[in-house]
Parts: sequence; structure tokens; C-alpha cells
Amino acid sequence: MQNTRILLAARPDGWVDDSHFTQDTQPVPEPGDGQILLRTIYLSVDPYMRGRMNDTKSYIPPFQIGEPLSGGVVAEVVHSNHADFAVGDTVIGLLDWAEYSVSNGEGLRKVHAGGHPLSYHLGILGMPGLTAYVGLVEVGRVQAGESVFVTAASGAVGSVVGQIARNMDCYVAGSAGSDAKVAHLKNTLGFNDAFNYKSVDSVHKTIAGLFPKGINVAFENVGGAQFEAAIWNMAVFGRIALCGMIADYNISRSEMPAGPRGMTNLIGRNVTLQGFIVSNYPQAAPAWDAQCREWLAAGKMTYDESVAEGIGAAPGAFVGMMKGENFGKQIVKVGDE
Amino acid sequence: MQNTRILLAARPDGWVDDSHFTQDTQPVPEPGDGQILLRTIYLSVDPYMRGRMNDTKSYIPPFQIGEPLSGGVVAEVVHSNHADFAVGDTVIGLLDWAEYSVSNGEGLRKVHAGGHPLSYHLGILGMPGLTAYVGLVEVGRVQAGESVFVTAASGAVGSVVGQIARNMDCYVAGSAGSDAKVAHLKNTLGFNDAFNYKSVDSVHKTIAGLFPKGINVAFENVGGAQFEAAIWNMAVFGRIALCGMIADYNISRSEMPAGPRGMTNLIGRNVTLQGFIVSNYPQAAPAWDAQCREWLAAGKMTYDESVAEGIGAAPGAFVGMMKGENFGKQIVKVGDE
Repeated sequence: MQNTRILLAARPDGWVDDSHFTQDTQPVPEPGDGQILLRTIYLSVDPYMRGRMNDTKSYIPPFQIGEPLSGGVVAEVVHSNHADFAVGDTVIGLLDWAEYSVSNGEGLRKVHAGGHPLSYHLGILGMPGLTAYVGLVEVGRVQAGESVFVTAASGAVGSVVGQIARNMDCYVAGSAGSDAKVAHLKNTLGFNDAFNYKSVDSVHKTIAGLFPKGINVAFENVGGAQFEAAIWNMAVFGRIALCGMIADYNISRSEMPAGPRGMTNLIGRNVTLQGFIVSNYPQAAPAWDAQCREWLAAGKMTYDESVAEGIGAAPGAFVGMMKGENFGKQIVKVGDE
Repeated sequence: MQNTRILLAARPDGWVDDSHFTQDTQPVPEPGDGQILLRTIYLSVDPYMRGRMNDTKSYIPPFQIGEPLSGGVVAEVVHSNHADFAVGDTVIGLLDWAEYSVSNGEGLRKVHAGGHPLSYHLGILGMPGLTAYVGLVEVGRVQAGESVFVTAASGAVGSVVGQIARNMDCYVAGSAGSDAKVAHLKNTLGFNDAFNYKSVDSVHKTIAGLFPKGINVAFENVGGAQFEAAIWNMAVFGRIALCGMIADYNISRSEMPAGPRGMTNLIGRNVTLQGFIVSNYPQAAPAWDAQCREWLAAGKMTYDESVAEGIGAAPGAFVGMMKGENFGKQIVKVGDE
């Protein structure tokens, strides 16, 4: 039996493209004592992975050239030499981008569909959903009725941020990169307002118009001009949850992205800007999981997925996501549930 | 009896100089019913006043051309038509830059020397001292033994930040704009280390060398390159208390100051950056006042003042402070205690 894997071929400098990936095919590995063999069902495709393609020290080590990429994976146990795992168990964990992988079980968590697609464990019931909750509620300390601005609002994280805010009776407006996404935000996800950041004359003036009394909580996924405009439009005692700056990830390392101007606005308005990594907030997971399942069951939360088919489609799915081509959460279906 | 006042002559664009001030001399005003006549003893000269010279909406209204500047003042009541104030009382409040002024008592607070110079009420026992405490303890949430970096460290605020940190057994390093100030920080104020930001090859590398494990709390008064370097050198879960950005205040409005690059560092390290205005934290004043007086009495807190003499010296004192020529807190002695 053969095992196809996706490897890092070269480190991108600026935009990532297909040339930065390669693949190989090897025999399926043999699990040793205390190990299990896993068959990949879904791969998660996430913006933070772009940072791991750079050779820079961060909170998570960089990918190595010639080695498989890795990320969030839902997989089925197909052979077990481990007392805690049985053949047929479904698990989630950080695993290689490969059709099969071997694990000693460390960091794996068993998951059950529970009436939802298994892939939701890579999205709304997984890291991106918890990121939305932690950023808005724990970091952003949002209160019912406040005003919320979210960038990349139709994405895996932003779409959940907006719906949490809506369910908390907040005024929520978001930005996205196409008119179709903007329509989806307003018509399906219940955003009060939304705009296409690529087509408005001025992001700054658009945000100012949407938030005449200022933004109470800004959930920042994008960086660049939108981040700067948010800084200029915060309300007194506002909070900015800094989750990602995907616009900056695509800029060549030789031209370091400009920083947001107007930081003195943070002083005069007593604004808090907090960067965060969801893995630092594990204690928030049970509350979010319960709330999310309640809202899903009540039809008060929806979740969109863009699904690429087959391990070979993973590089293209990643490149497309970095360009904003996905609609909601980008995943790759590698094998059947 | 005559009353000399300092007026705003023109709005500076970038660096402020003597041409932006003028003075006039008028008869001393007559206090009406319910009013008091105040004789100015000390004027406070503070960086935030530079912002009030711009015609921009902020947390405090702009100065008006042809009108007196105003700021923190210690004054003596010389005539009273107000039941709460008696001739001879000493008060502090936001008053005009003038030898005499009339007030209805609103916003005034009686002060007593209490063994300290009266001018301390404009400094360590006043707004700058409370700013240091609020920024380090309430905003920065400093803990005993942590590492602290402070810019403009020999200034009215920074010198107090450093001494609080030292008294809390923190490691504290600061930056200043002259070798004499650096020596004072290390030899007199008890900083563990300090550097002259004007003469080091790289502010970034200097800070990295002083904080090999990263900065737990950065107290930012300056902005510009030092702010950016702090952002790159924060420890995981670090806090940046953003108090001022004096370097930016001197840049022409036609060339908006560049923003700090590398904000993604805040994400990976889960750093909080909070701007603040001391007037939003009145509840902190009693604790700080008691702690400060205890440390002053025990010789565990010292405070330096640069004193200019006479109302006519006020513009020059302000211009000099914006250039960093002062040593510690800049005040103007307008009349005898």
C-alpha cells in the first residue's frame, strides 16, 4: 500500500505558489510498539501555516524543506499497538499532510461526529471556532449590544466571530474580498453590514461611516490598511483582538511590511490591542464547545466549507486560500469518513 | 497690578519653537461672586500639551490661537468670594499660563506641602507620578521580579516608573537622550542598566542584549524606533503600556509618522499593547499617593526637577522639554511659595 505525502519544496518569499510544494509516494509506514497507524480523512488548511514556511523562530517550529507539511488532521485508526486507541476510532491532531501517518498517540484527541460533519472538528468545533470565541469573548471582552468589526469576515474564523456577535445582540459589520462574500455576510450570516475592501474608495471612510460612534471590539485577521483604519476608528476603551495579519504574510521579507500609522489614537482613546494564540486559552474550550453545539442545534450558527478533493489538491487549496479564493473554511478531503 | 499671560501665537507643524508663543500683559482680573483670584506659583510643562497645539479632536480640547495656554498649575488664593476657599489656601488645577487667574473653584484641589516641595504636586505627587504608577501597575500589571523597559527614563514619568520597578525587585533598564542622563539612571535612580538611544549603533540590538529573555513590561513614552524595537523584544504574555509617543509629535502633519513594523510579534507572543490616559484611572490615586509618600519618606524614591524662572520663561521651557533638554520634571516657577 502506498502513501502520498505533501512536502515543502522551497520557502516562499512573499506569495506562495505551487512551486513551493512537492509530493512523494512511499510505502505506508509500519506502526511500532505503542504506536498507531492513521488514515487521513480531512486536512485543515489554515493561514498560520504560511508562517511555518518561513525559517523563523516562532511559537511553533518552521516546516523543513524536503519534509512533509503538517497541520490539523482528522484521521481514522486503521491499526493499533496502543491500549488507548482501537481500530475504527476517529481522532484529531497535528499530523503530517499525508494519506497515512504513524503516531504514538501524543496530542491526539478522539472525536465523534455527533450529528455534525466530522470536518467541523477542523473548523467551527475545532481551532478556528475556538479562535473566534477566544478573540471576541476572552481577548475582546465583548459585551451584549456593543459594536464589532471583523476582517476576513467570511473566513473560517471571521464567519464565526460575526455570528457570535450577532447572537449576542451586537451590531456587527465585516469586510471581505468579493461582492459574493459580502452578500453572504449580509444575507446568510446575519451581519448588520459588510463591504468589499477591494472595491471601496476608502477603507478608512467606509469603516468610519459604519461605526459613527466608534468600534468597541475589532477582530483583526488581515492587517495592512484595514488594521490601520480600525485603529483610527476605535471607540474610547475599545479592544482590538489581533488574530492574524494575512496581508503581511504575502509581502517579501526584503520589504518589511509598513506598520499601522496613528498609534497615538490608542492612547487618547485608552484602547487595548492584544495579540493572541488560541492554544494559550485551552480553558475556554468547554464553554465554547457547549455554546457552539447549542447554537448549531438551534439553527443559530451556520458554517461554510470549501472542500478540495484528494491529497494532491492540498497545495492548490493552500495557495488559493492565501489569495482569498475559499468560501468559509478550507479543507481537503483525503479519504472517506 | 499687571498680569502677564502666555498665548498660542500659531500652531506648530512638527517641531515647536518660540515663534508659536506670544505674551500679553493685562490688568489682573477681578473675581466676581463665587469666584476666587489665584496667584500662580508653579506651572507644569508636559509633553501632552503639544497635542493640544494641534487643531485636532482629542480627549482634551485644542488650545486656541490668541488665547492663553493652560495646564497643571499650583497657585495661592489671594482673594476669595467663595465659601470653600480662603485667602492663603494653596490649590492645584488646570489653569491658564498666567501670573494671575480667576476661577469658580471647579476642578481645584487644595494641596499642602507636607514636607515636600509644593512643586511635587505637579510631578511625583501629581499627574506624572500617577501616570507612572497606573501605566506600570494597572495597565502593565507588573509583578515583582519581572523585567521592565522604559523609554524617556530620566523624564518626569519615566524616572518614577524605573524607581517603582526597582522597589518591586524588578530588573529595569531604560533609555535616555544623553550620557549624563544615562549615568544618572544607573548611579542615582537605581536602574539595572540604561543606554543613550542617540549614540547606540542599533536600538533593536541594544534592547535585545539587555533583555535576553524578553521584556515583560515595556513603558513607552517615546514612540518611533524605540517603540518598534520594544515590540520585537517582548516576552510571551508581555504587556506594553503606551503612554506617549513624543518622537511622533515633532513630525510634520504632512508626513505622517511611520507605524511600528513587526506587529505580528504581538500575535506569536500573546502580547497586550494598551494605550492609556491617566485621567481614566482616578481610583488608583489614593494607593499611589500613600505608597509614594512612604517611599519618599524612606529615601526609596527621588525626584528631579528642572526649574525655569518667571512666566516669560515658560515657552522656552516647553520648547526645551520637547527637545529633551530638561532633567526630570520640567516646571516654571512663576511666583514665590
